[in-house]
Amino acid sequence: MSLTQLFEPSAVAVIGASKTEGKIGYEAMANATRFDGAVYPVNPSTTGELFGSEFVSSLSEIDDDIDLALCCVPGPAVPDVLEECGEAGVGAAVIYASGFAEASEEGEQLQQRVVEIAEKHGISVLGPNTSGFLVPATDLRCSFASGVEEVPPGNTAIIAQSGGVAHVLSFQSRRQDRGISAMVGLGNRANVGFAEAIEYFDGDDRTDSIVLHVEGTDDGRRLLEACRESDTPVIAYKVGQSDVGEFAESHTGALTGDHELYTAGFAQYGVPTVDATDDLLDAAAALGNSPTPDGPNVGVVTAQAGPGIIITDRIQRAGGRLPKLTAETQARVDEILPGVTYADNPVDTGRPMPEFGEIVTAVAEDERVDIVLVNELFEAALGYPIEELDGLADRVDKPVLFVTEGVEENMADQRDALSDAGIPIFETPERAAEAAGALARYALLREGPSGVRTDGGPGTEAAARDGAAADGEVTADE
Amino acid sequence: MSLTQLFEPSAVAVIGASKTEGKIGYEAMANATRFDGAVYPVNPSTTGELFGSEFVSSLSEIDDDIDLALCCVPGPAVPDVLEECGEAGVGAAVIYASGFAEASEEGEQLQQRVVEIAEKHGISVLGPNTSGFLVPATDLRCSFASGVEEVPPGNTAIIAQSGGVAHVLSFQSRRQDRGISAMVGLGNRANVGFAEAIEYFDGDDRTDSIVLHVEGTDDGRRLLEACRESDTPVIAYKVGQSDVGEFAESHTGALTGDHELYTAGFAQYGVPTVDATDDLLDAAAALGNSPTPDGPNVGVVTAQAGPGIIITDRIQRAGGRLPKLTAETQARVDEILPGVTYADNPVDTGRPMPEFGEIVTAVAEDERVDIVLVNELFEAALGYPIEELDGLADRVDKPVLFVTEGVEENMADQRDALSDAGIPIFETPERAAEAAGALARYALLREGPSGVRTDGGPGTEAAARDGAAADGEVTADE
Repeated sequence: MSLTQLFEPSAVAVIGASKTEGKIGYEAMANATRFDGAVYPVNPSTTGELFGSEFVSSLSEIDDDIDLALCCVPGPAVPDVLEECGEAGVGAAVIYASGFAEASEEGEQLQQRVVEIAEKHGISVLGPNTSGFLVPATDLRCSFASGVEEVPPGNTAIIAQSGGVAHVLSFQSRRQDRGISAMVGLGNRANVGFAEAIEYFDGDDRTDSIVLHVEGTDDGRRLLEACRESDTPVIAYKVGQSDVGEFAESHTGALTGDHELYTAGFAQYGVPTVDATDDLLDAAAALGNSPTPDGPNVGVVTAQAGPGIIITDRIQRAGGRLPKLTAETQARVDEILPGVTYADNPVDTGRPMPEFGEIVTAVAEDERVDIVLVNELFEAALGYPIEELDGLADRVDKPVLFVTEGVEENMADQRDALSDAGIPIFETPERAAEAAGALARYALLREGPSGVRTDGGPGTEAAARDGAAADGEVTADE
Repeated sequence: MSLTQLFEPSAVAVIGASKTEGKIGYEAMANATRFDGAVYPVNPSTTGELFGSEFVSSLSEIDDDIDLALCCVPGPAVPDVLEECGEAGVGAAVIYASGFAEASEEGEQLQQRVVEIAEKHGISVLGPNTSGFLVPATDLRCSFASGVEEVPPGNTAIIAQSGGVAHVLSFQSRRQDRGISAMVGLGNRANVGFAEAIEYFDGDDRTDSIVLHVEGTDDGRRLLEACRESDTPVIAYKVGQSDVGEFAESHTGALTGDHELYTAGFAQYGVPTVDATDDLLDAAAALGNSPTPDGPNVGVVTAQAGPGIIITDRIQRAGGRLPKLTAETQARVDEILPGVTYADNPVDTGRPMPEFGEIVTAVAEDERVDIVLVNELFEAALGYPIEELDGLADRVDKPVLFVTEGVEENMADQRDALSDAGIPIFETPERAAEAAGALARYALLREGPSGVRTDGGPGTEAAARDGAAADGEVTADE
């Protein structure tokens, strides 16, 4: 099954489109009409226009080849609508309605019928029980939620079990000035599940990292295998460590499953896991916009000691290591900045200063360092060391992450310049350190068992926490 | 020792004020001149004006009574400057310079002299090795950092061991639309330490919550006792769980100490601890803007299931409990919203809807609920249930927290209205749940040992994690 017709349709039909504001058929149509291609409102009991398009009473009236149908009809009406889609040659459908496998035994039977009809006609079905998907680059906005037209294009694909979480992540990504290549809320996964979506976005040119929100699935192995096959980095957020079973089951018809098992499974298949929505997007920004790190060793440069302590503490807890810098690098730092506050790892300059960029370069070029993390409060008179950082990551072939804090308006231009120079930026010391930790874990998990230290260093703990140290199944198929 | 002259001076002198941009004596003066009262630049080798004030060559030339001196001179010059302060009757001083106890044995001796001079003259000394403090309400901005003039007034006092972290927290608080009553970077704590600062801000009318950033102190008991005596809620962020000893020592001259010990100590003295800067400010917003919760039982209302699962999971891990709603409340919810997606705790309405506020009210009025957490993606056509939420927390005498997500500009007005209605707002499901967890832990810790469940419920774990279950020392002096 290809998802091309779902995510790259030439024409779209909104079945059950409505003129009544607030109804899903209205809201979905309002968002869908932003699409470049043709969008047809379909409703047998409505005439006239909606957002400039003429209502048609059925798919058969449309001359265009419809690839994608957005089904805004109640659950019981879905099978007939899907049959109509199949007869009209529609290749993909989104089913927004709930009341399927998540709700009751009847609902389960209804969903079974949906799956059968979809199979008969070869239709890729997203949902049921989803709020849809987005592809901002082509303005394909197949969600009924408010505000999705403002989610900007970026290079992270969000694949979420819950449509609600998919939207939370999309808006968060906008707030963080990042954007997404796509967002998909899988819902009940009639026949479009994690594996299908991962495969599709691994092949998508706009996507440089894939993030998963997972509650639970009865087909974990396929999910994990899709992760392993993906050349695009995948990061997972598995929710449900405490007892949320009954409520979760009522949601997308899936038990949240055993958290430890999932975490170990992800680790074995090369996927770092995180524990919050913001950490998920941060890890995606780090992995999607950086060279792949060769190892877990982080070099930290900070202009303030306090945040530096937070960062070094957190990196180690997140699975990164803090190597001693080489004698050469320490000498170089001393030469650039005689009497520097602290010249090992982290290098602490005490304050932002004109030489800050040179120091970062020295640390980035240290052979013991695989990942660079830079912390600096914004100082208006100095700005950021953009010239030195521009292209640094590519030149040393290592991720270079930056965390800063200050008055947003004052630092906006400098932030943009840093972003344009390819440097991922983070909002708090902890979140930057967690992103560095995700890079470190990715390096360890992809490196294979030989990457797991046996000297009792912090990396061992980290690897064990991710279940990688316990066996030899870690794959090195990068 | 009173800190009145430090935080409420009538006139301020900037010793070592400089006309050279970028120098601490320039930057500190630039920020200090925003103060309502008189601010005098003092420098024996400079004449003319700086920001409209005439340079004077020494304190003795000033007719005004100077309460506070900002010392922008290098470390070795500090003892003489402090002597001059003492002779001129100055009651408080900020020492920005580093190179004291954090740096070397010589520095330690230098600091010892500072302490002795301060004692002789009765001067409250903030620092050395600090970037200063802020009191936004009076525009008293005694920091040399860039952008501090933009930190808005609020009702949280930040007391940080590190000046850098104090600034990070201040700017974060601005970004979160919250603001602060004050920010203090303690640095080396010559004679103004945690205890003195906590006592002062507990008596400050503008302060409704106090947050601590703690690396380590050799006077932990006084700190803890000050926490216990404080009527204003205190929340602590103790950094340094992994090995950051050597670097930390180079910072404010304090070892980071044993993390577990601190956490247990804080719990015994009624202080919930958190594990990140953003969680610290979130907990402060929850505790400082809410009635004190009677217990740890959280009632959750969500308009989307996925974020609801994240929230319920996280609340339990953070020490909160999710009681079953009473039969009356469940019946009431069913009546308001027949066929509601999930009617226990959490109540999941499936989508935002006009009845959402009524549902929140029903849950808030449930006798089993001590804390209310509401999650709703913003829907433009509906807005937030402001009318129902306005005054609800006071009426039911319980905290009511709100987490939302959407397009910032679209929801700005509604967010402001919700804020004006006294509802603390959070940015992500996890952070809202952590804030609810901090409220729950605060309730348990202040309630005393009787509040610790013995039935193996999640509260037991949470209390144990905070070290409260292990002994009977939890105090009930609220």
